[in-house]
Amino acid sequence: MQTQKVPTFEDVSSALKRLSGTAIETPLLESAILNERTGARVLIKPENLQRMGAFKFRGAYNAVSRLSRDEWPGGVTACSSGNHAGGMAEAARLCNMPATIVMPEDAPEIKLSRTRAAGAEVVTYDRHTEDREKIAAEISSTRGACFISPYDHPHIIAGQGTSGLELMRQAEARGLRPDCLLAPCGGGGLIAGLALAAKHLQPDIEVYAVEPRGFDDHARSLASGNRERNEKVSGSICDALLAPMPGALTFQINSTLLSGALDVSDDEVRDAIRFAFKELKLVLEPGGAAALAALLSGRIPTQDRIIALVLSGGNVDGDQFAEILAAA
Amino acid sequence: MQTQKVPTFEDVSSALKRLSGTAIETPLLESAILNERTGARVLIKPENLQRMGAFKFRGAYNAVSRLSRDEWPGGVTACSSGNHAGGMAEAARLCNMPATIVMPEDAPEIKLSRTRAAGAEVVTYDRHTEDREKIAAEISSTRGACFISPYDHPHIIAGQGTSGLELMRQAEARGLRPDCLLAPCGGGGLIAGLALAAKHLQPDIEVYAVEPRGFDDHARSLASGNRERNEKVSGSICDALLAPMPGALTFQINSTLLSGALDVSDDEVRDAIRFAFKELKLVLEPGGAAALAALLSGRIPTQDRIIALVLSGGNVDGDQFAEILAAA
Repeated sequence: MQTQKVPTFEDVSSALKRLSGTAIETPLLESAILNERTGARVLIKPENLQRMGAFKFRGAYNAVSRLSRDEWPGGVTACSSGNHAGGMAEAARLCNMPATIVMPEDAPEIKLSRTRAAGAEVVTYDRHTEDREKIAAEISSTRGACFISPYDHPHIIAGQGTSGLELMRQAEARGLRPDCLLAPCGGGGLIAGLALAAKHLQPDIEVYAVEPRGFDDHARSLASGNRERNEKVSGSICDALLAPMPGALTFQINSTLLSGALDVSDDEVRDAIRFAFKELKLVLEPGGAAALAALLSGRIPTQDRIIALVLSGGNVDGDQFAEILAAA
Repeated sequence: MQTQKVPTFEDVSSALKRLSGTAIETPLLESAILNERTGARVLIKPENLQRMGAFKFRGAYNAVSRLSRDEWPGGVTACSSGNHAGGMAEAARLCNMPATIVMPEDAPEIKLSRTRAAGAEVVTYDRHTEDREKIAAEISSTRGACFISPYDHPHIIAGQGTSGLELMRQAEARGLRPDCLLAPCGGGGLIAGLALAAKHLQPDIEVYAVEPRGFDDHARSLASGNRERNEKVSGSICDALLAPMPGALTFQINSTLLSGALDVSDDEVRDAIRFAFKELKLVLEPGGAAALAALLSGRIPTQDRIIALVLSGGNVDGDQFAEILAAA
């Protein structure tokens, strides 16, 4: 469908220029309490502060802004659990393109309404019985719309990588070299882009993907060398991280560049959301808190290290957030 | 008790050097949705991301770090509804000084526990029947502790002003000149410090204090030219903004530099907290959301203007936050 050229650091760098003035350059934050608790210097990249509340806008805009309406009269189409949906809808709105997004019917309300509010048409499906890619492919061919994968697409990967490029430059401006970088992982687009940026600038940095327990397809795929599939399609609160298996293109990158994959339980994710509420004053959605959960649960050594952490999104419904706060 | 010299821009500038490496340089954020909704370019200074969750650490550290333990064997004492308490406790801990803090017994739990966790002794009192300044004065004389007012103190005012100095420099780095600056106001220390910094660098900027409805002592004092007292001591959800009247020192500054004072209802504050949760992904306490509430409620003209907004704190209990989210 699209060229499946493996993106490079240069593609990330070019994406950053394209996003300038449209995406938010998210800040690099520190927390005295998080530093003291871990014994590390933790550099927090809060992508929940990105346009539409998640890093996904970066890749979406990098992809959509290269398309012409003449070539794609039906605009763009995508399938997404929610954040790629919102990012694509907003990118299409800014580029004056129609967007049709295939979303699971049980996606968080905030993600459904945000996607519709940006002007996209939302088509819902049942995660357990329907094939979202098939639905999107049909829309794509009927309407003449360009299908943009949520992760397995070079412009998407390069766009997500801009978060890592910003992070490394912001760290460098403070005279800091992160020993290690952690980010949440579903299909692997974010972590692939981050790894492209970070490993190019600092080859000895360790990059870890963090997955929900039971959805450890990257851990198993890195171990076997093949793309392994998850048994389940639902059953974690991390709704944003439930891709069926690593992407083909993302795994080409991740199998080479990642130091490993860590997993976190739903309860560890809830603890991390409460920590972010109380100590960081940031609103995180479950998937967005996975890397913080891995850090707080001691999944990696922290003492005297510099650890970069991507908080990937904050689109959580108020009632779910209230429930998590109450369960402390 | 302390020298009541009116602080100047130079004091703010010197405070910023003193805070460097200890306080957080909070970022300057923007939100596409807030910009679109208001028609303005809104520059958000999120002091909820400051050490201890509120701007108050700035003033506290600027004051406490100048004291010597030899001169003050009992360390420091303060009275505070909570955020000055936390700031003072943390500043004292970092400076290896004891701290005794007088707090209302109905202060939010997060503020009480945060102050204790930083190692301070907390003495509680009843807002309606006891005089907190008298209690603090007694502790001060018995223990040989230096009393630091939550707002009426030159080092406190200069310290809080560092937030404004950072804001103006961050705006300038983006080539932006704010037309107007809004910040929450209780005793007036934050707004006085912000005005010192902002009006020095850009004399035509308009600076507005935002007060809870029914606690509009600054609005009435600016109108009459005298420091007017509030009738009530409680009765707004903005627990951080319930000072009895403008400070003597702060009012010397504010009566000269402010363009006015605006007031917001509790419901407008709740709306602002929900907006910050949903769109900004920031956790705000009621008092910390007052300026955002004024902006969202249309208290000032916004179209095509550049508006700087200080979000002053995020120390809110989980159950209160959940209740506010649920009331949407």
